[in-house]
Amino acid sequence: MFAPLGLDESRLAGGFWGERQELNHDAIIPHALHWLERAGWTGNFDNAAAGRPYEHRGMQFADSEVYKIIEAVAWDRARSGPSADLDADLDAALDGLVDRLAEAQDADGYLHTLFGRAWQRPRYSDISWGHELYCFGHLLQSAVASSRAGANARYLQVARALADHVCVMFGENGLRTVCGHAEIELGLVELYRLTGERRYLDQAALFIERRGTGTLPRIEYGSAYAQDDVPVREATVLRGHVVRALYLSAGATDVAVETGDAELLRTLETQWANTVATRSYVTGGMGSHHNDEAFGLDYVLPPDRSYCETCAGVASIMFSWRLLLATGKSRYADLIERTLYNVLAASPARDGRSFFYANTLHQRSVSVPAPVNDDGLCLRGASSRREAWFESSCCPTNLARTLASLGALWATKDDEGVQIHQYGGASVDTVLADGRRVSLDMETEYPHEGTIRITIRESPGTPWTVSLRVPEWAEGATVTVNGTAEAAAPGVFSVTRAFAPGDTITLEVPIEARFVFPHPRVDAVRGCVAVERGPVVYALESVDLPPGWSTEAAVVDVSKPPRSDRDGVHVRLSSIDEAAWDLPYTADAADALPRLAASAEVPLTPYHDWANRGPSTMRVWIPAEVATA
Amino acid sequence: MFAPLGLDESRLAGGFWGERQELNHDAIIPHALHWLERAGWTGNFDNAAAGRPYEHRGMQFADSEVYKIIEAVAWDRARSGPSADLDADLDAALDGLVDRLAEAQDADGYLHTLFGRAWQRPRYSDISWGHELYCFGHLLQSAVASSRAGANARYLQVARALADHVCVMFGENGLRTVCGHAEIELGLVELYRLTGERRYLDQAALFIERRGTGTLPRIEYGSAYAQDDVPVREATVLRGHVVRALYLSAGATDVAVETGDAELLRTLETQWANTVATRSYVTGGMGSHHNDEAFGLDYVLPPDRSYCETCAGVASIMFSWRLLLATGKSRYADLIERTLYNVLAASPARDGRSFFYANTLHQRSVSVPAPVNDDGLCLRGASSRREAWFESSCCPTNLARTLASLGALWATKDDEGVQIHQYGGASVDTVLADGRRVSLDMETEYPHEGTIRITIRESPGTPWTVSLRVPEWAEGATVTVNGTAEAAAPGVFSVTRAFAPGDTITLEVPIEARFVFPHPRVDAVRGCVAVERGPVVYALESVDLPPGWSTEAAVVDVSKPPRSDRDGVHVRLSSIDEAAWDLPYTADAADALPRLAASAEVPLTPYHDWANRGPSTMRVWIPAEVATA
Repeated sequence: MFAPLGLDESRLAGGFWGERQELNHDAIIPHALHWLERAGWTGNFDNAAAGRPYEHRGMQFADSEVYKIIEAVAWDRARSGPSADLDADLDAALDGLVDRLAEAQDADGYLHTLFGRAWQRPRYSDISWGHELYCFGHLLQSAVASSRAGANARYLQVARALADHVCVMFGENGLRTVCGHAEIELGLVELYRLTGERRYLDQAALFIERRGTGTLPRIEYGSAYAQDDVPVREATVLRGHVVRALYLSAGATDVAVETGDAELLRTLETQWANTVATRSYVTGGMGSHHNDEAFGLDYVLPPDRSYCETCAGVASIMFSWRLLLATGKSRYADLIERTLYNVLAASPARDGRSFFYANTLHQRSVSVPAPVNDDGLCLRGASSRREAWFESSCCPTNLARTLASLGALWATKDDEGVQIHQYGGASVDTVLADGRRVSLDMETEYPHEGTIRITIRESPGTPWTVSLRVPEWAEGATVTVNGTAEAAAPGVFSVTRAFAPGDTITLEVPIEARFVFPHPRVDAVRGCVAVERGPVVYALESVDLPPGWSTEAAVVDVSKPPRSDRDGVHVRLSSIDEAAWDLPYTADAADALPRLAASAEVPLTPYHDWANRGPSTMRVWIPAEVATA
Repeated sequence: MFAPLGLDESRLAGGFWGERQELNHDAIIPHALHWLERAGWTGNFDNAAAGRPYEHRGMQFADSEVYKIIEAVAWDRARSGPSADLDADLDAALDGLVDRLAEAQDADGYLHTLFGRAWQRPRYSDISWGHELYCFGHLLQSAVASSRAGANARYLQVARALADHVCVMFGENGLRTVCGHAEIELGLVELYRLTGERRYLDQAALFIERRGTGTLPRIEYGSAYAQDDVPVREATVLRGHVVRALYLSAGATDVAVETGDAELLRTLETQWANTVATRSYVTGGMGSHHNDEAFGLDYVLPPDRSYCETCAGVASIMFSWRLLLATGKSRYADLIERTLYNVLAASPARDGRSFFYANTLHQRSVSVPAPVNDDGLCLRGASSRREAWFESSCCPTNLARTLASLGALWATKDDEGVQIHQYGGASVDTVLADGRRVSLDMETEYPHEGTIRITIRESPGTPWTVSLRVPEWAEGATVTVNGTAEAAAPGVFSVTRAFAPGDTITLEVPIEARFVFPHPRVDAVRGCVAVERGPVVYALESVDLPPGWSTEAAVVDVSKPPRSDRDGVHVRLSSIDEAAWDLPYTADAADALPRLAASAEVPLTPYHDWANRGPSTMRVWIPAEVATA
């Protein structure tokens, strides 16, 4: 339906996301490269290449973090374009890493540092937890990125040899199972797209069909954990481990698109819709179980147990992005926006050197995670503090590759023109299918302000179309073309004409702050409200409260709409008297009403910016003050 | 303050708990004995005694299950009294098990089937998770029970040799640490009480003092998990793994009492009060984390994540019981009652052959736990189904030893007379400190009815006192002595006189069903109510709903009090329209109000009896219908 643009065709330019992309280049990527060395995960490849027994460092999937950071470096290079001043340090880092991992590859293409050597467990002996194919998938994605960025040619050879090995080992006549963690499917389809090698696509399709047929060994979390409970075609909603479920869905969408499987695509759209309707947080975050990092049942969305892993946010964007390309429906871009501002933007600290792994919607105490090793790393971390690195450090590298490639999410093209999906300073330069060259610039202070101005820079003499997503929350938006305004309902607003350079299209979205109320089925936030402004979810953070107040003992007056201006968003709060009872239950209904103490107008924090001003507690859902009649 | 009675001095006779004690004898104990053999946990001792390498079966603490079932058999024998017809099968089982475990004891007294042999990990090499001292503690408790029941004499020798080993290994000059799981402290004090050997008490006191000083290795769950974060004397509330915390507190209370440490006792009372006020469920259950089986923060009491492990219920009763004996305060007996009816009674199925490990307050889906081994056992289980056995099967044996010794909780004595703490058919026959023999019988249909009649059977000619606990919820209770009624406020009501045989004391407690409302700080059940009748918590179970209704989509009319009679408890419910939205959030407040559909009077189930009528969903906290003004 829509064709993606190259990172040199759709570029961010400053603003909320442009700044984060620079932060990625300047801080996040170098930080991750440093930690991969320090934690010994790159060293695993050197040890493997040396052929002597060694102690493997990190988790089973440590290899994949190296692949993901290479992918990040590659996309970061790609967005700079061929004419740009390349970053010699990063380029050298990419080449160095590729050389080291290539040396660790076995003659038959297999490449994993934890399995298969004489002193290690055999290859594929732990298909549920071993993450071999998972790591391979990341290698393939990474090698494709590297190739598309015009970097290191050797990497693609490594990838092809590995993919060929997978097709032999897991083909129709091979091991009839799947990896405990989906991901290989994505890598295989992307490698197919790059190389045209059909059997990579066939192998991906085979993995999709096998999943859900019970080929994986029994585990404590049950077969739904790895989506081995129900075939992809028969499922109606996502379940189990969130990142596994979303990577699988993204891979299945790729297979559906490349094989022209409309039925599979429809099924995936249904799964997406049901998952978003009943298993998603207001931040766009997914996952309400910590133990198995999994989806809860429908409407089980406790804010204090929201896992909302950063990687799940990345994975959700991957799935939505593929459905957006395949169907053109703006709802997919709506969820991408919600997830970008309230999951991905929340993970990194302002300096890009620490990260949230889980993105809770309610932090009741100031706490730090317990370290699990002598490096002082915690396993996954869920606390009021971002961490520099994790023993299971999938999120920082996933964030890095996503930020580096973010420009691609901004716009797409089709035969008729260009579609704008996300807002923020950017420029688009591309050639339509019929050879017509078009380009435009977007200027905006979004999401701080609601005015988005698009200026046509280059246009053929013939009519073409610029389509704008009007966000689902933007009731009352207008689009002004060269001075003439029209109302624009949520969805898509298209302008078709023979644009002249200098023509402007201005989208104006209302971004007054608003209260948001939960579905009555969401038990955990009954009687509470959240606050949104534009695409940004706000939170009550303890550092903004009057002295002596607590996020745990305050109610909000919902009779007064939140007040918003450029300085922020404010609500009217009352602190409540929090005396303890003998038991936290009473038979006296009147006793159970909160006793209001002081009242004050209090500023809220953009959720993505919490925990950046010292230790704090925080909540997105605030109990509504109830009448004491 | 109060002295406990022997199991031959305070006997249950029929009724709610008498029936369960018979079920324990007839079904639960034989069932557990069968599974201990079948799962190979008794076989570990045989293998260890044979001195050949073997694969250890079960968890690190499998030995302790054998000790706990011996304790159950011993108490079951003790309650029958010396003149009763002993159960030859159970007696033989006890002797057989003791013989087998005794053969596995090392020459220096050490006894654990998982550590210390040439082919195993060294003794005390995994102090955080190995459960060696934990198992020892259960052996000591079990051997003391056996001795007090007049059973197997060899067992006490095993116990003394083991306790001596512990005093050497962990004494002032030994390993300066504690076990990851408290329990040894309890066993040592009980062995001290039986034998008078002071160094067992000293060793227990040493363990109590060492705990909280950071002697345990770092673990993922943090040092609070094993209460190694704060010394017992400095803590203000229980935290970390619930059973660990409660066993530790019970052991510390024993140490405080035996060493006359009033300050420690005061600290423990404060911890109890804060824990009950802010970290306890309406059922009396404790623990709101599944992953680490731990307490949540204050007021973090989500019904759907209530872990409320059966063993935590047992442990809570152990702690409260010791504080009751030490202080005489009725609040401790109140919590014991709440926990008995709503945690312990909930665990076993009606036939005594399957058990809840976790006791959730809200089961949203019909589900079964995933098996983790070839026996089809699940690890701990948390679902809508009771399980016959668990891979980690601490709860059934803990329940068995508690039910067998339940009579002891009913009454105590002091110089002045007898105190009745729990209600249910029973008889008490004892001798007061000054040698006066007293006895009484209790007859009641409690908790189905509110009348409890106590008849004096034996009395000296001089005045003595019968004290009755008036439950905290029993506003409006009366006590009638030989026909003369008096109001009795919640707390303790004492009757002192020179009773004559045949005198009656009748306690009448109001047991109309009532709504219970949560403290405003309990986020997870805001806007919900529970229903109690007497000491029994009720639940809405799907099998009682009209066709097409769901526990997940119903609200209760709180303007009408629940209606209760002998047939049960009924409330007025409305089903709500549960159409899904695009996202489970809306900016339109009116849209967010539940849409009431049909309305009906619906029966509730006693919580302890749910899941006994086929697969079902269930909730204790029901959303209150709110005015749609």
